[in-house]
Amino acid sequence: MGINNQEKALILAQALPYIKAYNGKVVVVKYGGNAMTDDRLKAAVMRDLILLRLVGIKIVLVHGGGPEISEMLKETGRESRFVGGLRYTDEDTLRIVQMVLAGKTNKDLVNLIQKEGGSALGLCGIDGGMLKARKVRITGEDPGFVGEVTAVDTKPILDTIDRGYIPVIATIGCGADGQVYNINADTAAARIAAELRAENLVSLTDVRGLLRDKEDEESLIPEVCVSEVPGLMREGIISGGMIPKVECCVEAVRRGVHRAFIIDGRIPHSLLIELMTDEGIGTMFVS
Amino acid sequence: MGINNQEKALILAQALPYIKAYNGKVVVVKYGGNAMTDDRLKAAVMRDLILLRLVGIKIVLVHGGGPEISEMLKETGRESRFVGGLRYTDEDTLRIVQMVLAGKTNKDLVNLIQKEGGSALGLCGIDGGMLKARKVRITGEDPGFVGEVTAVDTKPILDTIDRGYIPVIATIGCGADGQVYNINADTAAARIAAELRAENLVSLTDVRGLLRDKEDEESLIPEVCVSEVPGLMREGIISGGMIPKVECCVEAVRRGVHRAFIIDGRIPHSLLIELMTDEGIGTMFVS
Amino acid sequence: MGINNQEKALILAQALPYIKAYNGKVVVVKYGGNAMTDDRLKAAVMRDLILLRLVGIKIVLVHGGGPEISEMLKETGRESRFVGGLRYTDEDTLRIVQMVLAGKTNKDLVNLIQKEGGSALGLCGIDGGMLKARKVRITGEDPGFVGEVTAVDTKPILDTIDRGYIPVIATIGCGADGQVYNINADTAAARIAAELRAENLVSLTDVRGLLRDKEDEESLIPEVCVSEVPGLMREGIISGGMIPKVECCVEAVRRGVHRAFIIDGRIPHSLLIELMTDEGIGTMFVS
Amino acid sequence: MGINNQEKALILAQALPYIKAYNGKVVVVKYGGNAMTDDRLKAAVMRDLILLRLVGIKIVLVHGGGPEISEMLKETGRESRFVGGLRYTDEDTLRIVQMVLAGKTNKDLVNLIQKEGGSALGLCGIDGGMLKARKVRITGEDPGFVGEVTAVDTKPILDTIDRGYIPVIATIGCGADGQVYNINADTAAARIAAELRAENLVSLTDVRGLLRDKEDEESLIPEVCVSEVPGLMREGIISGGMIPKVECCVEAVRRGVHRAFIIDGRIPHSLLIELMTDEGIGTMFVS
Amino acid sequence: MGINNQEKALILAQALPYIKAYNGKVVVVKYGGNAMTDDRLKAAVMRDLILLRLVGIKIVLVHGGGPEISEMLKETGRESRFVGGLRYTDEDTLRIVQMVLAGKTNKDLVNLIQKEGGSALGLCGIDGGMLKARKVRITGEDPGFVGEVTAVDTKPILDTIDRGYIPVIATIGCGADGQVYNINADTAAARIAAELRAENLVSLTDVRGLLRDKEDEESLIPEVCVSEVPGLMREGIISGGMIPKVECCVEAVRRGVHRAFIIDGRIPHSLLIELMTDEGIGTMFVS
Amino acid sequence: MGINNQEKALILAQALPYIKAYNGKVVVVKYGGNAMTDDRLKAAVMRDLILLRLVGIKIVLVHGGGPEISEMLKETGRESRFVGGLRYTDEDTLRIVQMVLAGKTNKDLVNLIQKEGGSALGLCGIDGGMLKARKVRITGEDPGFVGEVTAVDTKPILDTIDRGYIPVIATIGCGADGQVYNINADTAAARIAAELRAENLVSLTDVRGLLRDKEDEESLIPEVCVSEVPGLMREGIISGGMIPKVECCVEAVRRGVHRAFIIDGRIPHSLLIELMTDEGIGTMFVS
Repeated sequence: MGINNQEKALILAQALPYIKAYNGKVVVVKYGGNAMTDDRLKAAVMRDLILLRLVGIKIVLVHGGGPEISEMLKETGRESRFVGGLRYTDEDTLRIVQMVLAGKTNKDLVNLIQKEGGSALGLCGIDGGMLKARKVRITGEDPGFVGEVTAVDTKPILDTIDRGYIPVIATIGCGADGQVYNINADTAAARIAAELRAENLVSLTDVRGLLRDKEDEESLIPEVCVSEVPGLMREGIISGGMIPKVECCVEAVRRGVHRAFIIDGRIPHSLLIELMTDEGIGTMFVS
Repeated sequence: MGINNQEKALILAQALPYIKAYNGKVVVVKYGGNAMTDDRLKAAVMRDLILLRLVGIKIVLVHGGGPEISEMLKETGRESRFVGGLRYTDEDTLRIVQMVLAGKTNKDLVNLIQKEGGSALGLCGIDGGMLKARKVRITGEDPGFVGEVTAVDTKPILDTIDRGYIPVIATIGCGADGQVYNINADTAAARIAAELRAENLVSLTDVRGLLRDKEDEESLIPEVCVSEVPGLMREGIISGGMIPKVECCVEAVRRGVHRAFIIDGRIPHSLLIELMTDEGIGTMFVS
Repeated sequence: MGINNQEKALILAQALPYIKAYNGKVVVVKYGGNAMTDDRLKAAVMRDLILLRLVGIKIVLVHGGGPEISEMLKETGRESRFVGGLRYTDEDTLRIVQMVLAGKTNKDLVNLIQKEGGSALGLCGIDGGMLKARKVRITGEDPGFVGEVTAVDTKPILDTIDRGYIPVIATIGCGADGQVYNINADTAAARIAAELRAENLVSLTDVRGLLRDKEDEESLIPEVCVSEVPGLMREGIISGGMIPKVECCVEAVRRGVHRAFIIDGRIPHSLLIELMTDEGIGTMFVS
Repeated sequence: MGINNQEKALILAQALPYIKAYNGKVVVVKYGGNAMTDDRLKAAVMRDLILLRLVGIKIVLVHGGGPEISEMLKETGRESRFVGGLRYTDEDTLRIVQMVLAGKTNKDLVNLIQKEGGSALGLCGIDGGMLKARKVRITGEDPGFVGEVTAVDTKPILDTIDRGYIPVIATIGCGADGQVYNINADTAAARIAAELRAENLVSLTDVRGLLRDKEDEESLIPEVCVSEVPGLMREGIISGGMIPKVECCVEAVRRGVHRAFIIDGRIPHSLLIELMTDEGIGTMFVS
Repeated sequence: MGINNQEKALILAQALPYIKAYNGKVVVVKYGGNAMTDDRLKAAVMRDLILLRLVGIKIVLVHGGGPEISEMLKETGRESRFVGGLRYTDEDTLRIVQMVLAGKTNKDLVNLIQKEGGSALGLCGIDGGMLKARKVRITGEDPGFVGEVTAVDTKPILDTIDRGYIPVIATIGCGADGQVYNINADTAAARIAAELRAENLVSLTDVRGLLRDKEDEESLIPEVCVSEVPGLMREGIISGGMIPKVECCVEAVRRGVHRAFIIDGRIPHSLLIELMTDEGIGTMFVS
Repeated sequence: MGINNQEKALILAQALPYIKAYNGKVVVVKYGGNAMTDDRLKAAVMRDLILLRLVGIKIVLVHGGGPEISEMLKETGRESRFVGGLRYTDEDTLRIVQMVLAGKTNKDLVNLIQKEGGSALGLCGIDGGMLKARKVRITGEDPGFVGEVTAVDTKPILDTIDRGYIPVIATIGCGADGQVYNINADTAAARIAAELRAENLVSLTDVRGLLRDKEDEESLIPEVCVSEVPGLMREGIISGGMIPKVECCVEAVRRGVHRAFIIDGRIPHSLLIELMTDEGIGTMFVS
């Protein structure tokens, strides 16, 4: 890229209104799954988070870890089974899920942030009783220890932010009886964002956003009002794996998060493009 | 136990000098291995920690997790191999170690504390760059990614205590390059206690303490001055698995921890007996 | 008492739920009169208060001092005279009352707390304008400078607690004109407890509590709802010296104190039994 | 006094340099004995203290109470006896001394300050373990429980100042064993001033200051360097009751108090004249 | 003035109720114009402000600077022109106004306060966006860049007070577009006082106050209820240059300032006479 | 500039190490003279300062104002005269200098920062007694009221930073007697930077930096060790107007400022280029 330092400085200068607008605000970033597979990309995302934190944004990182869980299950001779889109989670699977999410994916992200010069603490929903959960209520086959968030105690998150760390959160939750539950990371991120009265929820995925024509990346819908969502579902534009992601954005916005985004984590620095430039790189949901 | 409430109250009253003496002090508790296998005992230890915290002691819980690691290695078709007393840790083993310690043992302890009414955050040495480590230097066979602590950043521990939590620490460490190391929990606990200028280091084990005659639990040595340790080693009284435990106590005391204890975690409420009564239940190391 | 340290530790462990429940709460203890005569018992009560403070309860000690006042009056050649249950208090008596309560009983209690290892400040209602009072309005003979509380300024009490002391309060009050009044300690304690939004008011007396049959200590009524009090009065179960004590408990509970207790201060560690065990040792008043 | 408001305002304006110089400084005022007998004068002194506090001076009031003690002893059929200038204090006398000083004189002063619109807490050396004392060592007849200060814990004094009160201190002290001692108020004031690193110690007495000729008030010595004191003693200019007062001033100045004053408390507003005008009304001791 | 120090001290003592009443309150002093011409008087006013600040009053000084502006305009060959009582302010005049008010009058007052031993920061309405303004809306000839206050941001004023300074404020304001406006100092002072919920607004002028007969200074009206103002205007008692001054007092009182005063700044220490004695030296406006 | 948002985001990301390195550090920016004439450029510099502040740098802006002073002198019929490189400053000139610097240049910069979305307070050395000065000692002709800094009180600067503002400082100083002095802005900036223990002093000028050949901008010397300066002077490479600028950089570095820069304020965003990229745009002075 033949950009000289004068042009670079101009670009930094152009970030001023965005930095100013986000100063002191909470932004919850959901990261995970297929968007998280490339190591160089992952390091770049962590650097973006550190940068955003340094310029005054209170970043909260919520992650999933599907692929790593599947791999570990396979390694222990188990197969990944899904029931109505949810991972079937018997006691043994639950043990693996907790171990991988809270011990591997989580701490690896923390390690990466620390290595890139940031400061992070890795927590899961068990820590400080952060994510209270109960078994999901579902018709049909029982998916096992899959939970839904009943309450969020924001104290451990805020304590972590206040002391200067980026909280990195694995979405394991807990019932009052200590029963652990596997919680969908998108849903948890939406609830966390809502309870923190976050400015934004940004979902870093491996798709461009909501496409009018799934085959055509140029057909990206840049902005969706949550009231339009039912129509888009009926039209089939929101379908398949996009349904839960969109529902989380809708949920977050309904509960008071200012804006929710689905953006493409595979595009280098997509977070910075979305938050720090005039370009909307994915799909934005507003109330 | 036919003890009436009046006798109970008297006993509470007798704890006053101990509570007063420990008020506001840091006590590092090392817990792990075979002392940690019984579930009811584990819950009882957690309740003791919560109690000690409530009466004003700044409790830090450092844990190992050998048995759980071995089990998981077995489950994934690997065998536990030890080199000079250290677990041989190749890259794959390291991954399992991190997963089990930071994701399973650690969060299970946090879960237990929360369930019993306490408040805890589960951290490992990666979090906030707490445990800086490098490869152990050892003559003979290379044990792989086994580390020794080069520095302790007490900030994440103190932040956690300040905000009202019991920090629960898995002894995974990290080099400047992000390389993860498996660190012996006893050693790490000793270093953490020293850096926190802890009043006490208490090692909860599955032995009575230091025995003059290994076959006779009545031959317990209640107090050892660190200068006596070399002699006790020559006499063979400190031998086998006790050597590293004793060395950690010596190390802690040498670095300024007031007193270090090896006590029997299998005895119900041994922690309370040691800290809150006039009875020395195990072996105390002093300078 | 043949209780070994293991049993002792178990008993400490059993105090956890009580310590947890009272953590950070205010408990006002009314102490005085005949319950306060035995020196060893008095020292034991002070140690109990220090213990309760150390385990996180904000203790406020309110005391009377009838016997010491009577003795001093006698020493100066005066007789104690009572009008409708109130000490007849002319100007000379008032001077003696203030001197004994604020200078003797109060400072002796502070001295005892300090000697037993606690930290206390001795105040009376004059200090910081804490207890505003006016002459009691009574039909029949004028009891002189006997006052009733018109307002409580909690600032000096809270300042004292905040800085780490147990406030010890003599119930002398003051009109806006500086006129001093002798105030009944039970009534003052009830008002102080109410204004501090205390969790409990505990009245340490020289009776077991409310007895269904005054001759039979086994007939103790463990719990009374304040709405039952009028009935118990009509039945004569609440009578004589119990009437003002019960009225204070009712008043405190009506004004928002969670629970009020009349317990027997002559029983060693009755405070600990009541607050730290599952046994209700006296009579509890609830709304 | 035919002074119009314009002249009054001018006088207020002239106080500026003094108010500025004393802003935030500690001034210990010793008040007591014969200077404290007149009620109107006493009220005026309290108003002066309130004023000085409001304009930013951290006032500490230390008082004696000889006449009230003698009176109470007489009332209880005892006589005041002095041994080498010290009140002979047997156990019974000690009880009366404590009662009168801490319960009467002290709280009456607090009452007066509160009534005049100030805010005060009445403490004695027992409170918070403020004045540690031991038996005075004296050759000749044993004066009984007369103490000398071994240490001052300034925490209760500073806590009281910090929270906005004028601390009013009765000079009763305490041994480690809880034994109470009667301590000379001048000596205690000097030690307290020294430990608080006070700017000034002001002793309000019933004499004009140090007079070159005791019969002639015009022979007042306005300023004495502590090194001149031995000479003045040899000359007999410092003699009798002045000796202990002067010694306290010398002690205070030697221990770092900037200036010590002996002024005449019978002159209306002598405190304000000394501290807020260019006139030295009594004798000033400097190093 | 033959007043001895004892009388002086008495006068200081008599200030106690006033000092107490104003403790911690905000008083906005408007100073300027012809009241500000005499150098010795100006220094005396500054000393009065320092004194008031030291005795606990949060002083805010708002100033005009008409004569200095006129002089500078003359020096640059311009003439002062007034339109409906407002200085005609074209762009060039505005530049001079800003320069003189914010750079000369303002900093000279700060200099004087610092020199007299106080601590001050000189601000204008541009600093921290303190005075938001827009063009005055007026019928008839356009006065140019003359502004009226649309909002007051009290943060810079309170920050300055909190850190121990007297804020000195030049009444230059600013539109959202950065356009500077010349704002009448009386009006600005009234708005500032209202937004700070000041206890008093004191306007230091060069008249005695409101006179019933303009020729007779003895005809001073000491107190005016704001509801009487329209009547006084109809009667012609409020007329000419007094109209805007009175309107500001009315405005301030209407917006919640407790009392507003017009007093004669030419009388030495008139501020102290008004605030610290029982004499009302000018005219007081109350609601 | 055909740079897309992805490239822009990359550039932002590349600023991370610089933002991290400067986080919480003080940077003093000297701005003035000919570098400050272009309005668009001035606004851009202010935006850069706001940006740097938002990303965590404690910016202090020190300005001169030579051209505006000269213009105002001319407008009032005076001519600018220089004595040994210093503006000849008689009493009248001094009045104009203060007015222009503190009232015009200073407040215009504050206005610009506020308008661009930042928060600033405009101070001069008189405010809070910030710059203590005395007459420069010079051989030859007396330049009048030209001062040199004798002491810097950093309190007003730090108070302003702490409360969230960018302090904008006009380099007028003051003697103890209140005499105002005109102080060279470069010198003042160097002293201020030293007293604040600033990380950097950045002098924004209208030259490229130090040139080996004055005619050739390509001959820029990027880095100079302060020990090389005498040699460069002898060689004539540092000469004329560069001498005082270089001397200030040397002075700052000698007094502990980490690095001092002379950069070209005419280059858009030169500040950002210097602080936030890997390019050294001007000349850096190090110890």
